[in-house]
Amino acid sequence: MNQDYIKPDNWSIIEEGFDASRVKSSESLFSIGNGAMGQRANFEEEYSGDTFQGSYIAGVYYPDKTRVGWWKNGYPEYFAKVLNAPNWIGINVKINGESLDLNICKSVDDFKRELNMKEGWLSRYFKATLLNDIQVEVFVKRFLSLDLDEIGAINYEITPLNSDAEIIFQPYLDSGITNEDTNWDDKFWDTTGISHKNNQAFIEAKTMKTDFHTCTFMESKVYISGKPILVEHNTKADSNHVSFSYAYPVKKGETYSVQKFGGYIVDRNHNKSQLVKVAKQVLKTATEKGFNQLLEDQKNAWITIWKMADITIEGDVKAQQGIRFNIFQLNQTYLGKDSKLNIGPKGFTGEKYGGSTYWDTEAYCIPFYMATKDQKVARTLLEYRYHHLDKAIENAGKLGFKNGAALYPMVTMNGEECHNEWEITFEEIHRNGAIAFAIYNYHRYTGDYSYIPEKGLEVLIGIARFWQQRANFSSDKNKYVILGVTGPNEYENNVNNNWYTNYLAKWCLDYTLDQIEKVESEFASDFLRIAKKVKLSKKELALWKTVADNMYFPYSEKHQVYLQQDGFLDKELISVEDLPKSERPINQKWSWDRILRSPYIKQADILQGFYFFEDQFSDEALERHFDFYEPLTVHESSLSPCVHSIQAAKLDRMEQAYAFYLQTSRLDLDDYNHEVHEGLHITSMAGTWMSIVEGFGGMRIKDNKLSFNPKIPKQWKEYSFKVNFRNHIIKVNVTQKQTNFEMIYGENLEILVNKKSLLLKNNVLKAVS
Amino acid sequence: MNQDYIKPDNWSIIEEGFDASRVKSSESLFSIGNGAMGQRANFEEEYSGDTFQGSYIAGVYYPDKTRVGWWKNGYPEYFAKVLNAPNWIGINVKINGESLDLNICKSVDDFKRELNMKEGWLSRYFKATLLNDIQVEVFVKRFLSLDLDEIGAINYEITPLNSDAEIIFQPYLDSGITNEDTNWDDKFWDTTGISHKNNQAFIEAKTMKTDFHTCTFMESKVYISGKPILVEHNTKADSNHVSFSYAYPVKKGETYSVQKFGGYIVDRNHNKSQLVKVAKQVLKTATEKGFNQLLEDQKNAWITIWKMADITIEGDVKAQQGIRFNIFQLNQTYLGKDSKLNIGPKGFTGEKYGGSTYWDTEAYCIPFYMATKDQKVARTLLEYRYHHLDKAIENAGKLGFKNGAALYPMVTMNGEECHNEWEITFEEIHRNGAIAFAIYNYHRYTGDYSYIPEKGLEVLIGIARFWQQRANFSSDKNKYVILGVTGPNEYENNVNNNWYTNYLAKWCLDYTLDQIEKVESEFASDFLRIAKKVKLSKKELALWKTVADNMYFPYSEKHQVYLQQDGFLDKELISVEDLPKSERPINQKWSWDRILRSPYIKQADILQGFYFFEDQFSDEALERHFDFYEPLTVHESSLSPCVHSIQAAKLDRMEQAYAFYLQTSRLDLDDYNHEVHEGLHITSMAGTWMSIVEGFGGMRIKDNKLSFNPKIPKQWKEYSFKVNFRNHIIKVNVTQKQTNFEMIYGENLEILVNKKSLLLKNNVLKAVS
Repeated sequence: MNQDYIKPDNWSIIEEGFDASRVKSSESLFSIGNGAMGQRANFEEEYSGDTFQGSYIAGVYYPDKTRVGWWKNGYPEYFAKVLNAPNWIGINVKINGESLDLNICKSVDDFKRELNMKEGWLSRYFKATLLNDIQVEVFVKRFLSLDLDEIGAINYEITPLNSDAEIIFQPYLDSGITNEDTNWDDKFWDTTGISHKNNQAFIEAKTMKTDFHTCTFMESKVYISGKPILVEHNTKADSNHVSFSYAYPVKKGETYSVQKFGGYIVDRNHNKSQLVKVAKQVLKTATEKGFNQLLEDQKNAWITIWKMADITIEGDVKAQQGIRFNIFQLNQTYLGKDSKLNIGPKGFTGEKYGGSTYWDTEAYCIPFYMATKDQKVARTLLEYRYHHLDKAIENAGKLGFKNGAALYPMVTMNGEECHNEWEITFEEIHRNGAIAFAIYNYHRYTGDYSYIPEKGLEVLIGIARFWQQRANFSSDKNKYVILGVTGPNEYENNVNNNWYTNYLAKWCLDYTLDQIEKVESEFASDFLRIAKKVKLSKKELALWKTVADNMYFPYSEKHQVYLQQDGFLDKELISVEDLPKSERPINQKWSWDRILRSPYIKQADILQGFYFFEDQFSDEALERHFDFYEPLTVHESSLSPCVHSIQAAKLDRMEQAYAFYLQTSRLDLDDYNHEVHEGLHITSMAGTWMSIVEGFGGMRIKDNKLSFNPKIPKQWKEYSFKVNFRNHIIKVNVTQKQTNFEMIYGENLEILVNKKSLLLKNNVLKAVS
Repeated sequence: MNQDYIKPDNWSIIEEGFDASRVKSSESLFSIGNGAMGQRANFEEEYSGDTFQGSYIAGVYYPDKTRVGWWKNGYPEYFAKVLNAPNWIGINVKINGESLDLNICKSVDDFKRELNMKEGWLSRYFKATLLNDIQVEVFVKRFLSLDLDEIGAINYEITPLNSDAEIIFQPYLDSGITNEDTNWDDKFWDTTGISHKNNQAFIEAKTMKTDFHTCTFMESKVYISGKPILVEHNTKADSNHVSFSYAYPVKKGETYSVQKFGGYIVDRNHNKSQLVKVAKQVLKTATEKGFNQLLEDQKNAWITIWKMADITIEGDVKAQQGIRFNIFQLNQTYLGKDSKLNIGPKGFTGEKYGGSTYWDTEAYCIPFYMATKDQKVARTLLEYRYHHLDKAIENAGKLGFKNGAALYPMVTMNGEECHNEWEITFEEIHRNGAIAFAIYNYHRYTGDYSYIPEKGLEVLIGIARFWQQRANFSSDKNKYVILGVTGPNEYENNVNNNWYTNYLAKWCLDYTLDQIEKVESEFASDFLRIAKKVKLSKKELALWKTVADNMYFPYSEKHQVYLQQDGFLDKELISVEDLPKSERPINQKWSWDRILRSPYIKQADILQGFYFFEDQFSDEALERHFDFYEPLTVHESSLSPCVHSIQAAKLDRMEQAYAFYLQTSRLDLDDYNHEVHEGLHITSMAGTWMSIVEGFGGMRIKDNKLSFNPKIPKQWKEYSFKVNFRNHIIKVNVTQKQTNFEMIYGENLEILVNKKSLLLKNNVLKAVS
């Protein structure tokens, strides 16, 4: 744990006291989003201290140049990256001519920030004494509407406490923004038009190269003691900036406030010639409702989300706050409405990692969305990859693979690869397996097979072809090997026979062969269509089987464990415990070569495989591998502790499971890896959900039935969660004594609890102790 | 072989006929240099076609930003790179108002370029018909003076053939140049002053950041039919450019010419406030001599070089041309006068590879300079590394090594690392061994031990410390292993137990222990000084010995060969012969991951080790390893064929040795690897010299004696070379029947020929058949 300043609270994220060194961290932690856009919790008014200003529009990206010192064949020429968007939240404040700037004023008192997750808003309160000795009290509330997802609203109140003062509000729009991660000094936005009238202003800007047209807009209105007043305002506009100035002589103790509505209209959703017009309509709808009604709607929209997605924990505020923070941020990032969107590892909270889609979606996020939303959402996420199949085939082609082999990109926005480190781009190929696994997982959970004949099988075939070609026969081992890969543990690069990769490759081949057989016999017309389209031959299938049947897996007889890769045992196996704290995180303290030859594991690798394919290994084998690999794992990936938490729970090591749970759920809140200032770890938050539902709740699908094996950490009085399973909604409540199951929606359903059958009936509570 | 347009000639490089697609290749091949500066063979007059303009000043570099998409700890923040320098050779030509530009004129006839290696000058002849139908004949001669190494001279003659014409010569200076390899759009040069008077002009410019101050200068004079004439000239100067215009109405058949002297004065050698003054003095000296006398001096200076360095080959013009091209370019690049300079892989002919010093110097160049120059030159090259020892210790420190361990940079200008690919910078650590080997090699050849107690031992200790710390104990193998390295074969990255690296590490430890013992017993005061300075302990030495004695070497019982690295046998060992030609060079056709998991070897790796430590392996072992690895070697490094040529000769495979000899000696002339347009491969040219002297001549040091085992390719009538050995100069002449040895300088010397003793006396020819 690296920080401890967030106040424990069941429903809110709270910071008290102003500390300039925490500003960037808090900007990440208090981020808000509504699935269509999002923003870091930047101050509205000027702030001259260290800050990372960031607003992001879903699906608006930029193809940045790929430049490396030493070019490798196969690198993308351009890669799409998350793009910092024009700023509409800005409201500069002048008090008797002095700018309100928390970085330079004499004192900041009673500073408090709150992110209210129950109702979906962000607020800030403080008293500030300016250099001119005027003390003011400020209260700001802001939210991005879930209902009208193109707009957000700000209410900014200021009260001079010790004297009258002339206060000027300067709400503005700014399209002269750059990316924090801009490497190559490119300009991303072209401002194409600025207009303003009365209290409204509009900046039209388009992204260079990708030509996304956007209109960033605002409307402002000022109030005294909550009553609208008419103030003549000045307007200033230049090439990428427009601001209004509302000056008013405010009496001591009187509250002067501005309400600002703003947001984006994007040609992803509207005709590009109509953007300003649409913006005006959206403003009209919003202002007619008014700030308070919009806020009321916001609360109700979040109530609906929480009704299905909430997890309650009694007796452990930090744990409760952690899980809600995770669920809240996931819902702020992705709501499953748009099939072209996906879940970026940093959501709308930062730029690191460039693209939007990683294997995180398939490996970590789909279970959360399957169980807390309509199953269409998960299907939409699968279809995202189906739409990218041609590009994945192209991508494999660039690396020399033939005959329809598909390699999905490591990082992408539009199906094209967005990353150019050879050891990742070309070698971290296990991602291909996660995409196949998600298809299997979707069918397993939802029971909906139709996706496979309709779309999934083509994806599986492309992936199977890749694996068959990527493996080669080693006459030395008399087996098929997979050389030169990077596994999920990115702290080993270009290794041979990474067990996880080999296992997944074999599984993909076997699974695809099974699905071909099933589709051929049960969906004949689909089969004919696909077989013709992808030119399947019996000979090819036989080759897949040969490779799958003869795959090599490195194993240590001495340790009775599979080896992470061929050379693993040559390393000095000193456990993390024996590593001085001052050396961690190793990715910030050590040079890369030292990391690579160390035994330290960034994230679950073999254990990730045991998680995916749990049924294929005994509990004893899991325990042996857990005991061998866990002590070497540094968890410097956000995706690691959740898997360990689930497995520790399965092994009845509840203390360990609980510690990992806290780590995954409070990874950002407590900044375990010293990096929260760069943004939040959104995708791993779905892993946190899994660590409760699958870890403590022991939820699985067994024999096509929903199955539970509930456990509870001793720190908790009780906890509860709901899952949406095949048109049933089941609420599970676990106490130290018993578990209550209640089907709150759906027909009779047989489930398994601790391997025993239990029949659930609508609204009948069943307790199992 | 990729091209075949260079005419075979014993002493010259000749191109006939103009072909725009060859311009960049020829600019490399016809490059000229004098050790202090050098330039590509760019045309003097305007050329709008594809060209790569390059002039370089020895030791003037620029610390460019290190930028990578994903930063790794340990990368240099800045790295020094070879810097393109202001252009002084430019002479634009206007004929009746039309620019002479070979890219756009109607026709170019009888075009001929010659690089005369015997005399050290470059010439160009052509007839051109302009768009205005005027036909002119042009003859240009240019050289960089070896005697006055701050100046070069150009004689540019033009004759209108079919009509009178007004011809304008516009000699100019230009400091507005950029690097071909500029990645980050930085500006490198700041022009600080421009002045001109009469026929002289001066541009003072300094490099950004490194603050090298230079004066680029010129003086021009025009002639009609060889007689100086006074022509009023216009002068144009702007912020980084100055030009004179000499217009003259030239009669049909009359020759109008300009002589231009130009060059650089640099504050590496002069007080920076005196640069223009020094330039004027240099111009005075040069113009007083005049073009013809300077050219005469040039010829004589080259005669002196060739007298010692020439290798003659009778009966094979291409082979003769090849070796002289190599010797010529080496002498153009480095003459051993300045201890801060070194030998860049591209010399003054291009920018690729950034820095100036690689392990090439120690592994390939030192033998050439030891045998063809005074031994001080080789000692100067060793001292270059001694001067960088502190920076090598700093560099190792950045990677986590302690206690005075030294890791020399992969690429450097000033001792700092210039490269930032982790698999090279952090992992291609065998370079450290080459630096130790060169110390051993210097002593072996020159017999001069004094360097070791004076300076070399400190370097050896730093290197030994690195190896001991870099190895780790594998309990699995019960041996010390070296994980995560890149060997000389850069087509494998991050491998474990690269045999060459492990062998070199062990050798360094053993050799350093031996030298410590010797210095302790024979140079006691040196030993005390060093032991105190570096804080040596008996315990540390014991640890070195443990690591050296227990080093692991991967070996295949089945193939009876050492393995290049632990995973080598898992690869599909398909020989290069069976690889379609269309797939080669693989570094241009394949993605990096495919290269890495292929068995193809970029350059001698295990065989490089067998070359260094020949005496430690039997001929049978050499043959086995050669037969195993050679068929997998693609020789896509220029440093590869020479080693294979030497070893093929040793194995009496003269056809193969000859083929490799042609490949190494004509690598650039015939452009084997499709890349000569980027510059020449200077350092490997010393390898070409070795392939004759050590390969065919069989020269070695055995039992502290010079030893030969001469062979001759059947294609040759005879060949000869000279070596400078411990104050003796010996000429060796090998025919198909016998070998003649003649000591042309020095006292009586016992040498070995085919393992038998032979006493050489001054000027007495001894024949051995």
